[in-house]
Amino acid sequence: MSSALKIAIAGLGTVGVGTVKVLQSHADVLAKRCGCPVEIVAVSARSEKDRGVDLSSYEWFSDAAQMAQGSNADVFVELIGGSEGVAKDAVMAALQSGKHVVTANKALIAHHGFELAQLAESKGLSLNYEAAVAGGIPIIKTIREGMAANSISRVYGILNGTCNYILTTMRESGRAFNDVLSDAQKLGYAEADPSFDIDGIDAAHKLAILASVSFGSKVDFSSVHIEGISRVSDIDIQFATELGYKIKLLGIASRSNGTIEQRVHPCMVSVKSPIATVEGVFNAVVCDGDAVDTIMQEGRGAGEGPTASAVVADIVDIARGISVPTFALPVGELENLPTSPMADRVGAYYVRLMLVDKPGVFADVANILRDYQVSIESLLQRVRDPGEAVPAVITTHDTAEANMANALNKIAKLENVTEAPCMIRIEDF
Amino acid sequence: MSSALKIAIAGLGTVGVGTVKVLQSHADVLAKRCGCPVEIVAVSARSEKDRGVDLSSYEWFSDAAQMAQGSNADVFVELIGGSEGVAKDAVMAALQSGKHVVTANKALIAHHGFELAQLAESKGLSLNYEAAVAGGIPIIKTIREGMAANSISRVYGILNGTCNYILTTMRESGRAFNDVLSDAQKLGYAEADPSFDIDGIDAAHKLAILASVSFGSKVDFSSVHIEGISRVSDIDIQFATELGYKIKLLGIASRSNGTIEQRVHPCMVSVKSPIATVEGVFNAVVCDGDAVDTIMQEGRGAGEGPTASAVVADIVDIARGISVPTFALPVGELENLPTSPMADRVGAYYVRLMLVDKPGVFADVANILRDYQVSIESLLQRVRDPGEAVPAVITTHDTAEANMANALNKIAKLENVTEAPCMIRIEDF
Repeated sequence: MSSALKIAIAGLGTVGVGTVKVLQSHADVLAKRCGCPVEIVAVSARSEKDRGVDLSSYEWFSDAAQMAQGSNADVFVELIGGSEGVAKDAVMAALQSGKHVVTANKALIAHHGFELAQLAESKGLSLNYEAAVAGGIPIIKTIREGMAANSISRVYGILNGTCNYILTTMRESGRAFNDVLSDAQKLGYAEADPSFDIDGIDAAHKLAILASVSFGSKVDFSSVHIEGISRVSDIDIQFATELGYKIKLLGIASRSNGTIEQRVHPCMVSVKSPIATVEGVFNAVVCDGDAVDTIMQEGRGAGEGPTASAVVADIVDIARGISVPTFALPVGELENLPTSPMADRVGAYYVRLMLVDKPGVFADVANILRDYQVSIESLLQRVRDPGEAVPAVITTHDTAEANMANALNKIAKLENVTEAPCMIRIEDF
Repeated sequence: MSSALKIAIAGLGTVGVGTVKVLQSHADVLAKRCGCPVEIVAVSARSEKDRGVDLSSYEWFSDAAQMAQGSNADVFVELIGGSEGVAKDAVMAALQSGKHVVTANKALIAHHGFELAQLAESKGLSLNYEAAVAGGIPIIKTIREGMAANSISRVYGILNGTCNYILTTMRESGRAFNDVLSDAQKLGYAEADPSFDIDGIDAAHKLAILASVSFGSKVDFSSVHIEGISRVSDIDIQFATELGYKIKLLGIASRSNGTIEQRVHPCMVSVKSPIATVEGVFNAVVCDGDAVDTIMQEGRGAGEGPTASAVVADIVDIARGISVPTFALPVGELENLPTSPMADRVGAYYVRLMLVDKPGVFADVANILRDYQVSIESLLQRVRDPGEAVPAVITTHDTAEANMANALNKIAKLENVTEAPCMIRIEDF
């Protein structure tokens, strides 16, 4: 058996402690699987409080960047988080001092993945980030290695467990968004400041990474179109059910004609679609490849165990000598693919209007839709309340997003439309 | 860029031709992904007929074993099939002459995987078989690498697309088994001799491989309990629907207390279970690991493109220098784990009896069940036809298989039971 692979872990929150636990409890079998022992030699965190694991035999660093440079580790594991500051500095320092890097930091990879990959490649080092996307699901390995024979045309999925939990619970309980969110916070499924999750930023970080590794493009987070779930109302969830849909926050990326599409927003998907069956905190990713057709993977997207599983799998790869280009291709081969604007999307739409219930109101709406070539597929109006505002729901046939947006702008200005129209895209998965 | 990785392909059926097509059409991107060109240098098949791909620049061998020894390939790709004879001889010859092996041959790995792994390991060569299990789904990579941090307690799945297609179509159309089978044969979803598929042998080969790679045990096909789907009747499918179940042919393996369980048989699973949503020719595999919790992967389990995708991914791994122990652990670490007998299974059961419809008949049945501690959960009898045989369906609470089997033996002998009871295990997934 070869000499030990030495590990330094920066960040001892939930995932850091989970990683320590897995490496400690599975040390024997990991050594057999890797052909060498995997030993923690150093850890780093801001404070030395008791974390329920024995850290006494590891060198302690209060400064992660110092550990990245100073420790004798072979692998630097970054579990601090954040796209800038300590995490970035420490990862750069680790690579510069010849250490492989394993990270769970989606923000870092989404913002700086390309330059970090350049640095790693120039030093002949691995930069592994399985835990950054969809937690325990080995989707990066699946795309970089398992689907290596394919030209990938599309990747999409449920990439944020907090949002999926909230939307699932809203549907099952009939409760409103804020109510369910505050429960999710009590249960630990949502952060005290939930904006990264519910505004779609977290899902967008993951989507930008998936797009790069799937399409061979430079990771380009700034071009992702992002809408969160805070405007999804319980009324829309009820209408979705009535129409045979579920509302899911999806990240969707596709490649065609030299451009890529990258978007995160609430979607209506048929209840019969495989992605619609993924509920609660679970994540799922679907990939379409030209040889393999469609692969779907489902599992837990967060939490101590699942995230540690991905972190340790990345460490095992390094111990086994497995090295793959960071984004599946050498950095020099990654393309600058422009992201197509949302206005170019063509698809169906769900639109809910609040209309004053009086004769002729709907004719104004229908005329505007006709003027913008928006063809109505179905119309639902359940409640009658003469003189008051009641919901009217329209679903459309395939329409260009620009036309839909223009029509909605004009509809919003109608005298008898009492609040901003709610528009949710319907995806045909 | 390094010098080319040279490939010899034995067997030019659907998968062989698909592999040639992927290697030819994706040559440029594969070279970038691998860091070296991947070039076919030799092919072998029984006849030189036109297969719709240009093979003219490859050396032709009519004898696969001769190609395994004689060609200058680095990798020998075995797509002949069969556990013995040419396929085995050629794979042995390839390993003995220092060539890595990639195979899609589930029968070969299920029967001889351990000895072949010993040979490969002794020579420092890869023996890759991603395509042997669940076609295009990268489940071997997921278990050997993606879940390397986990102790895996259970793996199960829909491992045969032919059976899943037949069961799905029976349910959707209400048609009988033989009728649907003959359609599946016409559509190319079932072989002219369908016994390997419908008798569960093919699924059992895959399950034995999954069990070994999941549990670190020597692959042990002969201990798999196997029942096929030919006895599943349209009546049982109707009752399943009424009870909230679907009937699926599952392969199920689990490890506990130093023994493993390996079984392939029709199961009833709740329509709400994720595995129940996998329909038609699709396959799916679910793995339970102690860190990651549950991962499910779904995709096409057969066909030219999906199988070639897996074969080429295995080749890419070799080109990238990725080498992992054949069954996730070095052969010397694989354990001899005994398979627990089916009689030890504890779970719920569905039982359909054909009973002559007259007073007191059911009391005899109920008494026998009571004598064997089988507790009835529900009872369905839809049809009344005094004096004639009508179906009566019982579902049970958890029961030991031995008790259930003994009770059914006794029930089968009752005067008013007109045919052998139909028993289908209910799985709580």
